[in-house]
Amino acid sequence: MSSEKIMTSVRVIVQQCLSARLQVRPATSEEASDAEYVEIGRGVIFYVCLLKGAQADGLAKIVKSLVNVRLSYCEELSKNASVLDVHGDILVVPQVLVENYTNTTNLYDVHQASLGGRMKGKNVQYHSNLPKEEGEVLYREFVSLVEEEVKSTGTDSHSPAVKHGTYGNRQVLSVVTNGPFTHIFDF
Amino acid sequence: MSSEKIMTSVRVIVQQCLSARLQVRPATSEEASDAEYVEIGRGVIFYVCLLKGAQADGLAKIVKSLVNVRLSYCEELSKNASVLDVHGDILVVPQVLVENYTNTTNLYDVHQASLGGRMKGKNVQYHSNLPKEEGEVLYREFVSLVEEEVKSTGTDSHSPAVKHGTYGNRQVLSVVTNGPFTHIFDF
Repeated sequence: MSSEKIMTSVRVIVQQCLSARLQVRPATSEEASDAEYVEIGRGVIFYVCLLKGAQADGLAKIVKSLVNVRLSYCEELSKNASVLDVHGDILVVPQVLVENYTNTTNLYDVHQASLGGRMKGKNVQYHSNLPKEEGEVLYREFVSLVEEEVKSTGTDSHSPAVKHGTYGNRQVLSVVTNGPFTHIFDF
Repeated sequence: MSSEKIMTSVRVIVQQCLSARLQVRPATSEEASDAEYVEIGRGVIFYVCLLKGAQADGLAKIVKSLVNVRLSYCEELSKNASVLDVHGDILVVPQVLVENYTNTTNLYDVHQASLGGRMKGKNVQYHSNLPKEEGEVLYREFVSLVEEEVKSTGTDSHSPAVKHGTYGNRQVLSVVTNGPFTHIFDF
């Protein structure tokens, strides 16, 4: 049982995967097959939710923590190492609140910043989320920081791929894991 | 920004899916293809993490909340409804701490109660997790309560499937979503 005061402004789910595929552009019509995807191999997915209070000047430290935390098993060392140590890929998925999103191919409306949701009776409220415009700026900054961190610490021969979702899109995502090893980190 | 005292004892990630497949028994050898799986169609996945302080007498209320929260889009009503309202399936996945788990087919060690992990420098500590034996009893109770809740409120013609993972197993999981719509609820 934990008992502490929290002031969460950035919430990130870190999930290991063997592979993952994210749609970054939906098909132009229901019949079209021109949707675009990004894919990664073994590595981690960061689902990023930006909440009220998130600020650009705190992001660098958060990204450094996430990229360097030892959650990926390294065969050579027989212990957990960072995703960079094991030359794993990184997929960044934004969690964005999009009220009344409409798209003829949708099965349901989208409130993608769902990680900030709180149960209120049988409904869920999203009052903690950052407005979309502010969130988009911080999301782009977050992705840039991940790319910089990987570039600065990655080895030349095994530079891991950094892929990311499009802010505001429906995150059509497929994930294959051999143990999701899901972590939640609040900053 | 949230600012409140938390006393989390049960943490559940609720994720929408179009389909999901979970291994409930690993193959008997690396070459064998006798692994067993459970599958669901459109519905929700509950990743359940039992932390210190979790007690059997609080579980019924938690399960009732999770099964009835309106997070699934209902075409007929044009608004969100419960997974039962839309006749969706439920897959319960346990998050279990298994230190030094060994299996020749593993790529890395497993600490499956990862949702209770906290970052400490570059490492993650799992001090909040319930011991495995206590967790297993509560997990079985959780699954029974989900089954009861579905049975008591489900319609005869469209009784949703309730499937669940095996406590202590590596949760080899594949998920297909058209927007993960991931929520975290702390109880």
